[in-house]
Amino acid sequence: MAASNVIKQSNGPVPFSDRLLGGRALDLDVWSIYNALALPPDTVNLGQGYMNFPPPQWVKEAADEAIASTVGNHYSHPKGRIRLRKAISDYYSDQFTNLGRKLDPETEILVTSGANMGMYSVWGAFLDPGDEVILFEPYFDQYLASITFNAGTPVFVPLHPPAGHTASHGPSAASEWTISIPELKAAITPRTKMIIVNTPHNPVGKVFTRRELEQIADVAKEHNLLVMSDEVYDCLTFDGAEHVRIATLPGMWERTVTVGSAGKSFAATGWRIGWLIGPPTIIAPTLAVTTRTVFCTNSPLQEAAAAGLEGAPKRHYFETQRKEYEERLAVLMKVFDKLGMSYVIPQGSYFILLDISDVEWPEDYPFPATITGRGKDFMFCWFVAQEIGVSAIPVSEFYCKEHQHIGEKFARFAFCKDIATLEHAGERLQKLKQYLKPKAANGANGATH
Amino acid sequence: MAASNVIKQSNGPVPFSDRLLGGRALDLDVWSIYNALALPPDTVNLGQGYMNFPPPQWVKEAADEAIASTVGNHYSHPKGRIRLRKAISDYYSDQFTNLGRKLDPETEILVTSGANMGMYSVWGAFLDPGDEVILFEPYFDQYLASITFNAGTPVFVPLHPPAGHTASHGPSAASEWTISIPELKAAITPRTKMIIVNTPHNPVGKVFTRRELEQIADVAKEHNLLVMSDEVYDCLTFDGAEHVRIATLPGMWERTVTVGSAGKSFAATGWRIGWLIGPPTIIAPTLAVTTRTVFCTNSPLQEAAAAGLEGAPKRHYFETQRKEYEERLAVLMKVFDKLGMSYVIPQGSYFILLDISDVEWPEDYPFPATITGRGKDFMFCWFVAQEIGVSAIPVSEFYCKEHQHIGEKFARFAFCKDIATLEHAGERLQKLKQYLKPKAANGANGATH
Repeated sequence: MAASNVIKQSNGPVPFSDRLLGGRALDLDVWSIYNALALPPDTVNLGQGYMNFPPPQWVKEAADEAIASTVGNHYSHPKGRIRLRKAISDYYSDQFTNLGRKLDPETEILVTSGANMGMYSVWGAFLDPGDEVILFEPYFDQYLASITFNAGTPVFVPLHPPAGHTASHGPSAASEWTISIPELKAAITPRTKMIIVNTPHNPVGKVFTRRELEQIADVAKEHNLLVMSDEVYDCLTFDGAEHVRIATLPGMWERTVTVGSAGKSFAATGWRIGWLIGPPTIIAPTLAVTTRTVFCTNSPLQEAAAAGLEGAPKRHYFETQRKEYEERLAVLMKVFDKLGMSYVIPQGSYFILLDISDVEWPEDYPFPATITGRGKDFMFCWFVAQEIGVSAIPVSEFYCKEHQHIGEKFARFAFCKDIATLEHAGERLQKLKQYLKPKAANGANGATH
Repeated sequence: MAASNVIKQSNGPVPFSDRLLGGRALDLDVWSIYNALALPPDTVNLGQGYMNFPPPQWVKEAADEAIASTVGNHYSHPKGRIRLRKAISDYYSDQFTNLGRKLDPETEILVTSGANMGMYSVWGAFLDPGDEVILFEPYFDQYLASITFNAGTPVFVPLHPPAGHTASHGPSAASEWTISIPELKAAITPRTKMIIVNTPHNPVGKVFTRRELEQIADVAKEHNLLVMSDEVYDCLTFDGAEHVRIATLPGMWERTVTVGSAGKSFAATGWRIGWLIGPPTIIAPTLAVTTRTVFCTNSPLQEAAAAGLEGAPKRHYFETQRKEYEERLAVLMKVFDKLGMSYVIPQGSYFILLDISDVEWPEDYPFPATITGRGKDFMFCWFVAQEIGVSAIPVSEFYCKEHQHIGEKFARFAFCKDIATLEHAGERLQKLKQYLKPKAANGANGATH
C-alpha cells in the first residue's frame, strides 16, 4: 500500500508491487550468474541441468507431425490436450496403486507449461498471506522465489549430511542424507499449509524411502496439510533404488499433488511441458490459476510428449535411458575418485554434489561483484569456470541464509551430458589437483566443522 | 486468513486461496461453455478466435529446424531466445518512432508464453491489493480474471455504441464506438495505477485514433499511471485504418508496455509465444514474475516466431495476410447484409459484432443450467450453435454486471477461418431469418432502448 501511495506524489517510474520484495526479487539468480553466456565461451557446461543431446527421434517426429497439421498449431484446452491427458493416465495409473482405477483425464490431471509453472500454480491456488510451507534443505531454489511471490512463508527443515562425512573420506551415499522427524514436527505451526517433497532429490540425488515418506505422511495427515511432491526425476533412479510416490500411501491421495515433467523424461527441457496429478480438490483450483497465467500450454509439444508416453513402454525407453545415465554417472565418479575428492553418489536425478572444502585459490583472485559476499561455493564455481573451463552450480543457493554454511561445502555437477563431454570435463577437472589443500593438513583441519 | 484457520479444525479438503474469490474463480468461463467439445460435433466454429488454417510453411519449417537441433529443444533464457528478441527489435523498432534508436533486446523486450501470460505478469509485477485498473468495456474477459487474481480492482469505463444504432439500421462502423474522456477522468482515484488500452479492439474491431490515444495519454501522464497497450491485432487493420501505438506519443514510452503476439501474427494461437515491449522500469520487474511463473518460454516455437518476423518484410507477408482477412470479412458481411441484420464493421482484429436484438426463439426452448440467468446473447449463442450449427461468443461476458445490458445485444463472430468455412457458416446462418422479429414491429419495438 505504501508503494501505491508513492506514485501519487512522484513523476518517476511507477513503482512495482510489494510482491517483488522491495526489488530483491529482481536480483540476478544463480542461473543467470552461471549462465552459459556469462562464462567463457568454451566452458564445458555441467551447471544448469539440461542435456546436450536432443530428444529421441520418434518423439520429435510427433512434434513435426503436429506442426504439419492445422489443429496442432492452435489453442489447446486449458486442462491440456486430451491426447496427452489420456497418455498420462495410461502411463501413470498403474503407479498410483492405491487408487485401484485409472486416473481421470478430466479431473485428476492438469498439463502445465513446464513443471515449474505447475508448482507456481498450486502455490497461487492455495497460499494466503502468511501460510507456511515446509521446505527440506537443500531445496530447488525456484520453490522459494515462487512461494514468497505467492505470499507464502517458507519454513526450512534440513536434510542432514552423514555424520562421518569429510572432504577426504571418499564418496558417500545420497541415502545417508536424512531428515529428522522431530525437527519436522517442531517446524509445524497453526499456519502450516503444505510440505514440499522432492524425490529423487535435486541436488542431493536422494530417493526417499517408503519409511521416510510414511513419517512425512503421518505429519501431513495429523495436521491436515497439503503435500506437493516434485517427482520430475522419477524416471531417473539408479542401482535399483525404489521410487515411492507419497500420494500412494494410505490417506495421502486426497492431499497430494504429484509433479511430472516431459523435459526430464524426454530430454526436452525447452519444451515447457509438465503435468500435475492429484485429486479434483487440488486440480480444479490450480486449473483456475493456470487459465489466468498462461490460458493454455503450447500444442505441438504436448502432442510430442503424448507420443513419448505412448511409445515408451514398448520401446523400453526409460530402461534404456536409465542405463545411459548410469554410464554418464560412472564417468564423473571416476573423475572425482581420481582427484581423491569426496562426493555424494546419487540414487536418482542427474546431479552429483562434490565436496569442495579442500579447494584453495589464490587469495587475490579477482571475483566479480555479483559473487562478493556469497559462499565459498560461489567462488569455487566462478574460479573453476574461469580457470579450468567447467561450470557447476553452487549449492548454498539451495539453503536459507542461516544454513548456507552447510551448502557452501558443495558444488553441483550435472551429468545429463553425453559421454564425450563428461570425459572432456573430466580431463579439465584434473587441474583441480593443484588447488587442493595438501592431504596431510586434512586430519586436523578438515571440512567437517 | 479465515480460510487458513478453517483447515486447522477440519479434516476435509484443504481450502484454496482467497485469491480464488470463494470459488467464483472456478466457474466455467465463456470459452469452456462454447468450446468446440461442448457443442454439437459438426458446429461451424466462429466462436473462439483461432484459425482453421495453419501457420505459413516457411515459418513452420523454422520450428522443424529447431526441433531437429539440440539446443532448440532445451531451456531458453528467461528473457527469451536472443534470436527472437533481436528479430522483435529489428521488426518493430521503426514503429516506435519517438525513440529514434533501436529497441534494446536485453532490457526493452521480454518474450512471454503467449500474450496473455505477458499481461498476467505485468499485473503480477505492479498491482498491490486495492490498486485500481481502468478497463474500457467491452474488455477481453481474461483481463478481469487476471487483474482480480492479482489483487487489483477493475474500474470500468464504457465504449459507447453510436447513438443512432438500432438492430435494423444496417451496418455501423467500429470507429463510431467512442469513449468519453470526462467519464475516464471521473473514474480516476488516488488508487488508480494503470489504464488498459486495446487497439485494434477485441471484440468491437475499433482502431483507436491518434486523437483518442492522445487524450488517454494526457490522463495517464497527469496521474502518473502505467498504460498496458494490448496490440495483438496490430497487423490486422483494414481499409487503410492507421494503427497508432500509444507508446509513441510524447512522454508515453516510459509508462507504456506494448503487448504483441506471434499467435495472431502467424496463425499459430497454440504456440504460446508473445512479447512485451517497454522501458526497463517495466520490463525488469515483469521478468522477475515470468521467471517465477514459467521460468522460460518454449524454445522451438520461439525460433519459428523469430523466422516469421525475419522473413515477413521481404515476403510482404503481413500485406498479403491483411488482404486475405479483408476477403474473409467481406464474406461474413455479405451474410449479415442478406439477413438484413445490423452489425459492426471492424477496422481491425478478426471479429464482427452482430446485433441479435431482433432474434426470437421458442419461449420453451430448453437452455442448459450453465446459461440460466445470463444475458440474451448467451441464449442466442447456445440456440444458434444447437439449431443452426454455427458458434459465436456472447458479448455480455466482456462487460461488468452493471453494463451487461449493452453487451447482450451482440454476439461476436470470428472470421479467422478459410473462405469455404465462412461461406458454409453463411448458408447455415440464413436460417436465422425465420427467428427474426417481423420488420414492421421494429419501428415501435426495436432494440435501441
